[in-house]
Amino acid sequence: MAIELITFPESGFTLFLVSICKELGIDYKLSTPAKLEDIKTPEYLATKHPFGKVPVLIDDGFQIYESSAIARYLISKYQKTKTSTILIPTDLQKAALVNQFISVGYSYFSDPAKKLISQEVNEKREGVAKDPEVVKEACEELNKVFDIYEKLLEGKDYLAGEFSLADILHSTIMQCIVHFGHGNLIENRPIISKWWKNLSERECWKSTIAENKHFST
Amino acid sequence: MAIELITFPESGFTLFLVSICKELGIDYKLSTPAKLEDIKTPEYLATKHPFGKVPVLIDDGFQIYESSAIARYLISKYQKTKTSTILIPTDLQKAALVNQFISVGYSYFSDPAKKLISQEVNEKREGVAKDPEVVKEACEELNKVFDIYEKLLEGKDYLAGEFSLADILHSTIMQCIVHFGHGNLIENRPIISKWWKNLSERECWKSTIAENKHFST
Repeated sequence: MAIELITFPESGFTLFLVSICKELGIDYKLSTPAKLEDIKTPEYLATKHPFGKVPVLIDDGFQIYESSAIARYLISKYQKTKTSTILIPTDLQKAALVNQFISVGYSYFSDPAKKLISQEVNEKREGVAKDPEVVKEACEELNKVFDIYEKLLEGKDYLAGEFSLADILHSTIMQCIVHFGHGNLIENRPIISKWWKNLSERECWKSTIAENKHFST
Repeated sequence: MAIELITFPESGFTLFLVSICKELGIDYKLSTPAKLEDIKTPEYLATKHPFGKVPVLIDDGFQIYESSAIARYLISKYQKTKTSTILIPTDLQKAALVNQFISVGYSYFSDPAKKLISQEVNEKREGVAKDPEVVKEACEELNKVFDIYEKLLEGKDYLAGEFSLADILHSTIMQCIVHFGHGNLIENRPIISKWWKNLSERECWKSTIAENKHFST
Protein backbone atom coordinates (compact mmCIF):
# COMPACT_ATOMS: atom_id res chain seq x y z
CA MET A 1 0.00 0.00 0.00
CA ALA A 2 1.35 3.42 -0.94
CA ILE A 3 2.10 5.90 1.81
CA GLU A 4 0.24 9.20 1.57
CA LEU A 5 1.99 12.57 1.86
CA ILE A 6 -0.16 15.65 2.38
CA THR A 7 1.90 18.48 0.95
CA PHE A 8 2.10 21.21 -1.66
CA PRO A 9 4.25 20.21 -4.67
CA GLU A 10 5.83 23.68 -4.73
CA SER A 11 7.20 23.15 -1.21
CA GLY A 12 10.85 22.16 -0.81
CA PHE A 13 9.66 19.55 1.71
CA THR A 14 8.02 17.70 -1.17
CA LEU A 15 11.35 17.38 -3.00
CA PHE A 16 12.94 16.20 0.24
CA LEU A 17 10.37 13.47 0.99
CA VAL A 18 9.73 12.35 -2.60
CA SER A 19 13.46 11.92 -3.12
CA ILE A 20 13.67 9.83 0.07
CA CYS A 21 10.79 7.66 -1.16
CA LYS A 22 12.54 7.14 -4.48
CA GLU A 23 15.92 6.36 -2.89
CA LEU A 24 14.28 3.78 -0.61
CA GLY A 25 11.86 2.43 -3.25
CA ILE A 26 8.72 3.40 -1.30
CA ASP A 27 5.40 3.72 -3.17
CA TYR A 28 3.88 7.10 -2.35
CA LYS A 29 1.00 9.28 -3.36
CA LEU A 30 0.84 13.04 -2.89
CA SER A 31 -2.36 14.63 -1.58
CA THR A 32 -2.44 18.34 -2.27
CA PRO A 33 -4.79 20.59 -0.30
CA ALA A 34 -6.94 22.54 -2.78
CA LYS A 35 -5.72 25.88 -1.48
CA LEU A 36 -3.23 27.33 1.00
CA GLU A 37 -5.95 28.30 3.49
CA ASP A 38 -7.08 24.68 3.75
CA ILE A 39 -4.20 23.95 6.12
CA LYS A 40 -5.36 26.69 8.50
CA THR A 41 -8.92 25.41 9.03
CA PRO A 42 -9.95 24.25 12.53
CA GLU A 43 -10.41 20.74 11.13
CA TYR A 44 -6.91 20.57 9.61
CA LEU A 45 -5.37 22.00 12.78
CA ALA A 46 -7.24 19.47 14.93
CA THR A 47 -6.67 16.38 12.79
CA LYS A 48 -3.57 16.92 10.64
CA HIS A 49 -1.01 19.48 11.88
CA PRO A 50 -1.64 21.69 14.94
CA PHE A 51 0.64 24.43 13.57
CA GLY A 52 -1.12 24.48 10.18
CA LYS A 53 1.77 23.24 8.06
CA VAL A 54 2.68 20.55 5.56
CA PRO A 55 3.89 17.83 5.18
CA VAL A 56 1.84 15.19 6.98
CA LEU A 57 2.41 11.45 6.49
CA ILE A 58 -0.29 8.80 6.60
CA ASP A 59 1.08 5.25 6.47
CA ASP A 60 -1.50 2.50 6.85
CA GLY A 61 -3.49 4.53 9.40
CA PHE A 62 -0.45 5.85 11.28
CA GLN A 63 -0.07 9.60 10.99
CA ILE A 64 2.72 12.07 11.84
CA TYR A 65 3.80 15.55 10.81
CA GLU A 66 7.14 17.38 10.46
CA SER A 67 9.39 16.46 7.54
CA SER A 68 12.42 15.47 9.63
CA ALA A 69 10.30 13.05 11.71
CA ILE A 70 8.66 11.65 8.58
CA ALA A 71 12.09 11.11 7.00
CA ARG A 72 13.43 9.23 10.03
CA TYR A 73 10.28 7.11 10.25
CA LEU A 74 10.44 6.14 6.56
CA ILE A 75 14.13 5.30 6.87
CA SER A 76 13.63 3.20 10.03
CA LYS A 77 10.75 1.31 8.46
CA TYR A 78 11.79 0.90 4.81
CA GLN A 79 15.56 1.31 4.46
CA LYS A 80 17.12 -1.73 2.75
CA THR A 81 13.76 -3.44 2.28
CA LYS A 82 13.41 -2.40 -1.37
CA THR A 83 16.71 -0.79 -2.46
CA SER A 84 20.28 -0.98 -1.14
CA THR A 85 20.54 2.78 -0.48
CA ILE A 86 21.47 3.68 3.09
CA LEU A 87 20.40 7.13 4.29
CA ILE A 88 21.19 6.64 8.00
CA PRO A 89 23.84 3.97 8.64
CA THR A 90 23.45 1.47 11.47
CA ASP A 91 27.07 2.02 12.53
CA LEU A 92 27.00 4.34 15.55
CA GLN A 93 29.80 6.67 14.58
CA LYS A 94 28.78 6.88 10.92
CA ALA A 95 25.20 7.68 11.99
CA ALA A 96 26.52 10.34 14.38
CA LEU A 97 28.31 12.07 11.49
CA VAL A 98 25.13 12.00 9.41
CA ASN A 99 23.20 13.54 12.31
CA GLN A 100 25.93 16.10 12.79
CA PHE A 101 25.64 17.28 9.19
CA ILE A 102 21.82 17.25 9.34
CA SER A 103 22.08 19.58 12.31
CA VAL A 104 24.66 21.74 10.50
CA GLY A 105 22.15 22.07 7.65
CA TYR A 106 19.32 23.13 9.94
CA SER A 107 21.48 25.33 12.21
CA TYR A 108 23.62 27.30 9.78
CA PHE A 109 22.51 26.75 6.18
CA SER A 110 18.72 26.70 6.13
CA ASP A 111 18.07 30.07 7.81
CA PRO A 112 19.97 32.29 5.36
CA ALA A 113 18.77 30.09 2.49
CA LYS A 114 15.14 30.52 3.60
CA LYS A 115 15.70 34.27 3.89
CA LEU A 116 16.87 34.37 0.28
CA ILE A 117 14.32 31.91 -1.11
CA SER A 118 11.33 33.56 0.58
CA GLN A 119 12.21 36.84 -1.14
CA GLU A 120 12.29 35.09 -4.51
CA VAL A 121 9.11 33.08 -3.81
CA ASN A 122 7.29 36.27 -2.84
CA GLU A 123 8.34 37.94 -6.06
CA LYS A 124 7.95 35.07 -8.53
CA ARG A 125 4.87 33.41 -7.07
CA GLU A 126 3.07 36.21 -5.20
CA GLY A 127 4.13 39.23 -7.26
CA VAL A 128 5.61 41.07 -4.27
CA ALA A 129 8.83 42.84 -5.27
CA LYS A 130 11.87 41.47 -3.46
CA ASP A 131 13.85 43.67 -1.11
CA PRO A 132 17.36 43.96 -2.63
CA GLU A 133 18.85 44.69 0.81
CA VAL A 134 17.48 41.44 2.26
CA VAL A 135 18.62 39.49 -0.81
CA LYS A 136 22.12 40.99 -0.51
CA GLU A 137 22.30 40.23 3.21
CA ALA A 138 21.10 36.64 2.71
CA CYS A 139 23.65 36.09 -0.08
CA GLU A 140 26.43 37.42 2.14
CA GLU A 141 25.37 35.08 4.94
CA LEU A 142 25.20 32.15 2.51
CA ASN A 143 28.62 33.01 1.13
CA LYS A 144 30.11 32.76 4.62
CA VAL A 145 28.40 29.41 5.18
CA PHE A 146 29.55 28.11 1.78
CA ASP A 147 33.13 29.16 2.59
CA ILE A 148 32.97 26.76 5.53
CA TYR A 149 31.28 23.99 3.49
CA GLU A 150 34.01 24.31 0.88
CA LYS A 151 36.46 23.21 3.58
CA LEU A 152 34.11 20.65 5.16
CA LEU A 153 33.70 18.86 1.83
CA GLU A 154 37.40 18.75 0.96
CA GLY A 155 38.34 15.26 -0.24
CA LYS A 156 34.79 13.97 0.18
CA ASP A 157 32.04 13.04 -2.29
CA TYR A 158 29.32 13.61 0.30
CA LEU A 159 29.01 15.43 3.63
CA ALA A 160 29.46 12.40 5.88
CA GLY A 161 31.73 10.58 3.41
CA GLU A 162 29.02 8.36 1.95
CA PHE A 163 25.68 9.58 0.54
CA SER A 164 23.13 10.09 3.35
CA LEU A 165 20.04 11.88 4.56
CA ALA A 166 22.22 14.92 5.32
CA ASP A 167 22.92 15.29 1.59
CA ILE A 168 19.23 15.01 0.63
CA LEU A 169 18.37 17.77 3.11
CA HIS A 170 21.01 19.96 1.47
CA SER A 171 19.91 18.98 -2.06
CA THR A 172 16.48 20.37 -1.30
CA ILE A 173 17.83 23.73 -0.24
CA MET A 174 20.45 23.87 -3.01
CA GLN A 175 17.80 23.08 -5.64
CA CYS A 176 15.73 26.05 -4.41
CA ILE A 177 18.78 28.33 -4.47
CA VAL A 178 19.60 27.29 -8.05
CA HIS A 179 15.95 27.30 -9.18
CA PHE A 180 15.48 30.87 -7.99
CA GLY A 181 18.51 32.15 -9.88
CA HIS A 182 21.31 32.10 -7.32
CA GLY A 183 23.37 29.23 -8.76
CA ASN A 184 26.35 31.60 -8.86
CA LEU A 185 26.72 31.08 -5.10
CA ILE A 186 27.57 27.47 -5.88
CA GLU A 187 29.28 27.76 -9.27
CA ASN A 188 32.24 29.80 -8.11
CA ARG A 189 33.27 27.16 -5.57
CA PRO A 190 34.91 24.06 -7.13
CA ILE A 191 34.37 21.67 -4.21
CA ILE A 192 30.74 22.61 -3.58
CA SER A 193 30.10 22.50 -7.35
CA LYS A 194 31.42 18.94 -7.50
CA TRP A 195 29.28 17.93 -4.51
CA TRP A 196 26.19 19.53 -6.06
CA LYS A 197 26.94 17.63 -9.28
CA ASN A 198 27.09 14.37 -7.27
CA LEU A 199 23.74 15.22 -5.66
CA SER A 200 21.82 16.66 -8.57
CA GLU A 201 22.84 13.91 -10.99
CA ARG A 202 21.54 11.06 -8.85
CA GLU A 203 18.79 9.26 -10.77
CA CYS A 204 16.33 9.65 -7.87
CA TRP A 205 16.96 13.39 -7.66
CA LYS A 206 16.66 13.87 -11.42
CA SER A 207 13.31 12.08 -11.51
CA THR A 208 12.09 13.96 -8.39
CA ILE A 209 12.73 17.23 -10.21
CA ALA A 210 11.51 16.05 -13.63
CA GLU A 211 8.13 15.08 -12.14
CA ASN A 212 7.65 18.39 -10.32
CA LYS A 213 6.64 21.17 -12.66
CA HIS A 214 7.35 23.82 -10.01
CA PHE A 215 11.05 22.99 -10.06
CA SER A 216 11.63 21.41 -13.48
CA THR A 217 10.81 24.46 -15.57
CA MET B 1 35.98 6.19 30.77
CA ALA B 2 34.04 9.43 31.10
CA ILE B 3 32.92 11.18 27.95
CA GLU B 4 34.14 14.76 27.53
CA LEU B 5 31.84 17.65 26.63
CA ILE B 6 33.42 20.89 25.51
CA THR B 7 30.86 23.54 26.42
CA PHE B 8 30.14 26.64 28.46
CA PRO B 9 28.15 25.86 31.64
CA GLU B 10 25.98 28.94 31.07
CA SER B 11 24.78 27.51 27.73
CA GLY B 12 21.37 25.84 27.59
CA PHE B 13 23.05 23.05 25.58
CA THR B 14 24.94 22.10 28.74
CA LEU B 15 21.69 21.55 30.65
CA PHE B 16 20.39 19.50 27.71
CA LEU B 17 23.41 17.19 27.45
CA VAL B 18 24.18 16.90 31.18
CA SER B 19 20.58 15.93 31.84
CA ILE B 20 20.78 13.26 29.11
CA CYS B 21 24.00 11.90 30.66
CA LYS B 22 22.31 11.73 34.07
CA GLU B 23 19.16 10.07 32.70
CA LEU B 24 21.26 7.44 30.92
CA GLY B 25 23.84 7.06 33.72
CA ILE B 26 26.80 8.19 31.58
CA ASP B 27 29.97 9.45 33.30
CA TYR B 28 30.89 12.82 31.84
CA LYS B 29 33.30 15.64 32.35
CA LEU B 30 32.80 19.20 31.19
CA SER B 31 35.69 21.05 29.56
CA THR B 32 35.10 24.77 29.54
CA PRO B 33 37.05 27.00 27.12
CA ALA B 34 38.79 29.72 29.17
CA LYS B 35 37.03 32.50 27.27
CA LEU B 36 34.36 33.00 24.60
CA GLU B 37 36.92 33.94 21.94
CA ASP B 38 38.67 30.58 22.34
CA ILE B 39 36.00 28.91 20.19
CA LYS B 40 36.71 31.33 17.33
CA THR B 41 40.45 30.61 16.99
CA PRO B 42 41.72 29.00 13.76
CA GLU B 43 42.77 25.96 15.80
CA TYR B 44 39.33 25.48 17.37
CA LEU B 45 37.61 25.96 14.01
CA ALA B 46 39.94 23.46 12.35
CA THR B 47 39.89 20.78 15.04
CA LYS B 48 36.70 21.17 17.09
CA HIS B 49 33.75 22.95 15.44
CA PRO B 50 34.02 24.62 12.00
CA PHE B 51 31.27 27.11 12.88
CA GLY B 52 32.95 28.12 16.15
CA LYS B 53 30.29 26.81 18.52
CA VAL B 54 29.81 24.53 21.51
CA PRO B 55 29.09 21.77 22.41
CA VAL B 56 31.60 19.23 21.12
CA LEU B 57 31.70 15.61 22.31
CA ILE B 58 34.83 13.50 22.66
CA ASP B 59 34.11 9.85 23.47
CA ASP B 60 37.16 7.58 23.57
CA GLY B 61 38.79 9.40 20.66
CA PHE B 62 35.59 9.79 18.61
CA GLN B 63 34.54 13.41 18.19
CA ILE B 64 31.37 15.13 16.94
CA TYR B 65 29.68 18.51 17.31
CA GLU B 66 26.05 19.75 17.36
CA SER B 67 23.96 19.01 20.45
CA SER B 68 21.19 17.12 18.64
CA ALA B 69 23.73 14.77 17.00
CA ILE B 70 25.55 14.30 20.32
CA ALA B 71 22.24 13.47 22.04
CA ARG B 72 21.31 10.84 19.44
CA TYR B 73 24.80 9.31 19.57
CA LEU B 74 24.74 9.04 23.37
CA ILE B 75 21.26 7.52 23.28
CA SER B 76 22.18 4.99 20.57
CA LYS B 77 25.33 3.96 22.43
CA TYR B 78 24.33 4.07 26.10
CA GLN B 79 20.52 3.87 26.42
CA LYS B 80 19.51 0.99 28.73
CA THR B 81 23.11 0.01 29.43
CA LYS B 82 23.21 1.78 32.81
CA THR B 83 19.66 2.94 33.63
CA SER B 84 16.20 1.88 32.44
CA THR B 85 15.28 5.34 31.09
CA ILE B 86 14.27 5.37 27.44
CA LEU B 87 14.73 8.66 25.58
CA ILE B 88 14.10 7.35 22.06
CA PRO B 89 11.97 4.18 21.96
CA THR B 90 12.86 1.29 19.65
CA ASP B 91 9.19 0.99 18.57
CA LEU B 92 8.92 2.68 15.15
CA GLN B 93 5.72 4.62 15.72
CA LYS B 94 6.64 5.70 19.26
CA ALA B 95 10.04 6.90 17.99
CA ALA B 96 8.29 8.78 15.18
CA LEU B 97 6.19 10.68 17.71
CA VAL B 98 9.29 11.56 19.73
CA ASN B 99 10.98 12.84 16.55
CA GLN B 100 7.83 14.75 15.64
CA PHE B 101 7.87 16.62 18.96
CA ILE B 102 11.62 17.23 18.74
CA SER B 103 11.00 18.89 15.39
CA VAL B 104 8.05 20.85 16.82
CA GLY B 105 10.41 22.15 19.51
CA TYR B 106 13.05 23.24 17.01
CA SER B 107 10.59 24.55 14.41
CA TYR B 108 8.08 26.54 16.46
CA PHE B 109 9.23 26.88 20.07
CA SER B 110 12.96 27.51 20.07
CA ASP B 111 13.04 30.56 17.76
CA PRO B 112 10.72 32.84 19.78
CA ALA B 113 12.24 31.47 22.99
CA LYS B 114 15.76 32.31 21.78
CA LYS B 115 14.57 35.78 20.77
CA LEU B 116 13.34 36.36 24.33
CA ILE B 117 16.24 34.69 26.12
CA SER B 118 18.92 36.49 24.10
CA GLN B 119 17.45 39.84 25.19
CA GLU B 120 17.64 38.76 28.83
CA VAL B 121 21.13 37.26 28.46
CA ASN B 122 22.38 40.45 26.86
CA GLU B 123 21.01 42.51 29.74
CA LYS B 124 21.86 40.27 32.68
CA ARG B 125 25.21 38.93 31.52
CA GLU B 126 26.51 41.58 29.12
CA GLY B 127 24.93 44.71 30.59
CA VAL B 128 23.19 45.66 27.31
CA ALA B 129 19.67 46.99 28.03
CA LYS B 130 16.96 44.79 26.57
CA ASP B 131 14.64 46.12 23.88
CA PRO B 132 11.12 46.10 25.37
CA GLU B 133 9.58 45.87 21.89
CA VAL B 134 11.52 42.71 21.05
CA VAL B 135 10.68 41.21 24.46
CA LYS B 136 7.00 41.97 23.94
CA GLU B 137 7.00 40.51 20.43
CA ALA B 138 8.80 37.34 21.57
CA CYS B 139 6.34 36.91 24.47
CA GLU B 140 3.41 37.28 22.07
CA GLU B 141 4.91 34.66 19.76
CA LEU B 142 5.56 32.33 22.69
CA ASN B 143 2.01 32.83 23.94
CA LYS B 144 0.67 31.66 20.58
CA VAL B 145 2.94 28.61 20.64
CA PHE B 146 1.97 27.80 24.24
CA ASP B 147 -1.71 28.03 23.30
CA ILE B 148 -1.08 25.17 20.88
CA TYR B 149 1.04 23.20 23.37
CA GLU B 150 -1.75 23.52 25.93
CA LYS B 151 -3.93 21.50 23.52
CA LEU B 152 -1.12 19.14 22.42
CA LEU B 153 -0.47 18.11 26.02
CA GLU B 154 -4.10 17.53 26.96
CA GLY B 155 -4.45 14.21 28.79
CA LYS B 156 -0.71 13.52 28.58
CA ASP B 157 2.12 13.58 31.13
CA TYR B 158 4.74 14.11 28.44
CA LEU B 159 4.77 15.29 24.82
CA ALA B 160 4.91 11.86 23.20
CA GLY B 161 2.96 10.18 26.01
CA GLU B 162 6.00 8.77 27.82
CA PHE B 163 9.04 10.81 28.90
CA SER B 164 11.50 11.22 26.01
CA LEU B 165 14.24 13.26 24.42
CA ALA B 166 11.57 15.67 23.14
CA ASP B 167 10.76 16.62 26.74
CA ILE B 168 14.41 17.18 27.67
CA LEU B 169 14.82 19.53 24.71
CA HIS B 170 11.82 21.49 25.94
CA SER B 171 13.00 21.41 29.58
CA THR B 172 16.14 23.20 28.51
CA ILE B 173 14.24 26.02 26.85
CA MET B 174 11.57 26.21 29.59
CA GLN B 175 14.29 26.42 32.28
CA CYS B 176 15.84 29.41 30.49
CA ILE B 177 12.43 31.09 30.17
CA VAL B 178 11.75 30.62 33.90
CA HIS B 179 15.32 31.49 34.92
CA PHE B 180 15.18 34.79 33.08
CA GLY B 181 11.94 35.86 34.76
CA HIS B 182 9.23 34.82 32.30
CA GLY B 183 7.69 31.96 34.29
CA ASN B 184 4.33 33.74 33.99
CA LEU B 185 4.13 32.46 30.39
CA ILE B 186 3.92 28.97 31.87
CA GLU B 187 2.13 29.59 35.16
CA ASN B 188 -1.14 30.82 33.68
CA ARG B 189 -1.64 27.61 31.70
CA PRO B 190 -2.73 24.64 33.83
CA ILE B 191 -1.73 21.87 31.41
CA ILE B 192 1.69 23.29 30.55
CA SER B 193 2.27 24.00 34.27
CA LYS B 194 1.60 20.37 35.13
CA TRP B 195 3.92 19.21 32.33
CA TRP B 196 6.66 21.59 33.51
CA LYS B 197 6.21 20.23 37.05
CA ASN B 198 6.68 16.69 35.68
CA LEU B 199 9.84 17.78 33.88
CA SER B 200 11.42 20.06 36.43
CA GLU B 201 10.86 17.68 39.34
CA ARG B 202 12.68 14.76 37.77
CA GLU B 203 15.70 13.88 39.95
CA CYS B 204 18.08 14.13 36.98
CA TRP B 205 16.81 17.59 36.08
CA LYS B 206 16.96 18.82 39.68
CA SER B 207 20.55 17.70 40.04
CA THR B 208 21.48 19.14 36.61
CA ILE B 209 20.23 22.53 37.78
CA ALA B 210 21.58 22.23 41.35
CA GLU B 211 25.10 21.62 40.01
CA ASN B 212 25.03 24.56 37.58
CA LYS B 213 25.49 27.89 39.34
CA HIS B 214 24.37 29.81 36.25
CA PHE B 215 20.87 28.37 36.52
CA SER B 216 20.52 27.40 40.19
CA THR B 217 20.77 30.88 41.65
